[in-house]
Amino acid sequence: MIKTLEWTEEGVLMIDQRLLPTEEVYPVFRTYEEVAYAIKEMVVRGAPAIGVAAAMGVALGARDTKTDDAAEFDQAFNHICQVIGSTRPTAVNLFWAIERMRNLYASLKTQNASLSEIRQRLIAEAQQMHVEDIAANRSMGRFGAELIPDGATVLTHCNAGALATAGYGTALGVIRAAVEAGKKIAVFADETRPFLQGARLTAWELHKDNIPVTLITDNMAGHFMKAGKVDCIVVGADRIASNGDVANKIGTYSVAVLAKENNIPFYVAAPISTLDLNIASGEQIPIEERVTTEVTHVKGAQLAPEGINVANPAFDVTPNRYVAAIITERGVARPPYTESLRRLAK
Amino acid sequence: MIKTLEWTEEGVLMIDQRLLPTEEVYPVFRTYEEVAYAIKEMVVRGAPAIGVAAAMGVALGARDTKTDDAAEFDQAFNHICQVIGSTRPTAVNLFWAIERMRNLYASLKTQNASLSEIRQRLIAEAQQMHVEDIAANRSMGRFGAELIPDGATVLTHCNAGALATAGYGTALGVIRAAVEAGKKIAVFADETRPFLQGARLTAWELHKDNIPVTLITDNMAGHFMKAGKVDCIVVGADRIASNGDVANKIGTYSVAVLAKENNIPFYVAAPISTLDLNIASGEQIPIEERVTTEVTHVKGAQLAPEGINVANPAFDVTPNRYVAAIITERGVARPPYTESLRRLAK
Repeated sequence: MIKTLEWTEEGVLMIDQRLLPTEEVYPVFRTYEEVAYAIKEMVVRGAPAIGVAAAMGVALGARDTKTDDAAEFDQAFNHICQVIGSTRPTAVNLFWAIERMRNLYASLKTQNASLSEIRQRLIAEAQQMHVEDIAANRSMGRFGAELIPDGATVLTHCNAGALATAGYGTALGVIRAAVEAGKKIAVFADETRPFLQGARLTAWELHKDNIPVTLITDNMAGHFMKAGKVDCIVVGADRIASNGDVANKIGTYSVAVLAKENNIPFYVAAPISTLDLNIASGEQIPIEERVTTEVTHVKGAQLAPEGINVANPAFDVTPNRYVAAIITERGVARPPYTESLRRLAK
Repeated sequence: MIKTLEWTEEGVLMIDQRLLPTEEVYPVFRTYEEVAYAIKEMVVRGAPAIGVAAAMGVALGARDTKTDDAAEFDQAFNHICQVIGSTRPTAVNLFWAIERMRNLYASLKTQNASLSEIRQRLIAEAQQMHVEDIAANRSMGRFGAELIPDGATVLTHCNAGALATAGYGTALGVIRAAVEAGKKIAVFADETRPFLQGARLTAWELHKDNIPVTLITDNMAGHFMKAGKVDCIVVGADRIASNGDVANKIGTYSVAVLAKENNIPFYVAAPISTLDLNIASGEQIPIEERVTTEVTHVKGAQLAPEGINVANPAFDVTPNRYVAAIITERGVARPPYTESLRRLAK
């Protein structure tokens, strides 16, 4: 079983995903600032994992505030939430997780809970979110597995696996559940430039689980779809608008267009916490722009000329018309999504 | 002016494109076997450049045969052509160039030319092909530039520049000609995994020429097309079937599909020597499969887990229905290509 992150007395233990697959290292992030750093620098990544890490970061920060004064604690708690919340803009699970911690805190304040009880309850809540995320993935897997035919070759983009969640995975959870149901499944993993989550993480996870996987560069996906080698696509999501538009790792939109052109169903697997029903469409989703060295350098080696102009949007938005179904832990949403997603989110 | 390759008394001088953009080195390949190695290992790449390199390799081999016997020379010449011809399977310019050298040799034999004259004429022919290729690119550029609106942002994939030809370039020749015609042009360069011709070569060429270029990963192209940031696409070709299907660097098909989906014209720029009128459609074009380490490693750094299964097709085929026009040195072909290409090839 792959361990993505874990609450410990010393802080939040996380596998450093930047070093995979060549090194398997589990540092502990001992303060909420360190947890914020880990999220920002992609030690931990993947929308659901970011959510759980954020909750643990808030709990850690709250636990370690050096005050017995409720007003001081209140100020510190707000500051912690702000710091954790300003790490990455696109994945809504980050804000969902912080909001859940804020709501718990507000409710405990109303009940005049002691600071000691508040601290304990915040830690318990973060741990509970960890447990719930794995359960959601298992449930999502069961629903999603029914969509995957026996003998299918599934293409996936980026890493929506155990490493992107508290465990088991969303897109890879669907694949794992199909395999557990006795189906013979093979996977194409897009390498997913620039950060190479597919090559480094998805290939690593599936290889570890003995699920047959073939690594390809992102620009090969269309070629294999056209050649009839891909039966369906399953990807994760970083934020889903109320109309079913899906923000996910850069390149997802291209995969979706190529799937449509080749009549291949394109599925998105994501927990309810990834839904952002406050926004009408994907156009309102902020797209993070990351540092250019992610594109110009790989493991320190320079690939492009000095001083070259580079764009590095970390996500794109796939319009709902390309999405055959959205697989959640509460069931499978089909178009029109404005209705089906609202129904599931209730 | 970028020097891709050059005939010298010592052998064929080529810029080692594997080392760009960080090192600019010009080794000389002194035997036909060394030239074959340079083609196979992609010291030189790009269909028209491969053609000229192949012709120079044949000339070099013929010059250095240690015989005055016509029958022995004949056998050696055939062997040289076979060795050069077995380096790479997809770019038809390789076979076109060898065929041209064979035809010249056959004609000189019929005329009872001396071996010394044959050797001289083969060298002159290879040099002539170098000159002709640059002239063809300039002509192609003038035809193509008319298709590029002033103020346009052009997206290109791989490198179809000076480095892919004897000089000036096919797709980048069109862009250069548009700039020379006084148009304000900006370029998106796909990095083009796995060999990174876009990041390493196209970005380098355009940066050197002060043509504004933004480097992106392959999977970002669709995102920028959807955002309305791309006005047209221009790419090169490795082989064009008589129906206008285009084999080009892996990923080209995806770019073409995304262009169609976003109503962006997709142009191919290639010399007549890239046409293969012997085949009816792109399905008959052999696709080279290259070593997996191109995908799993970058500059020696390991990106993927040990022992992972990898696919590495170097090319894909874009069906003619995605191609708005094919730009050649004799004019612009439009659909239906079976007629327009045959007309231009006459």
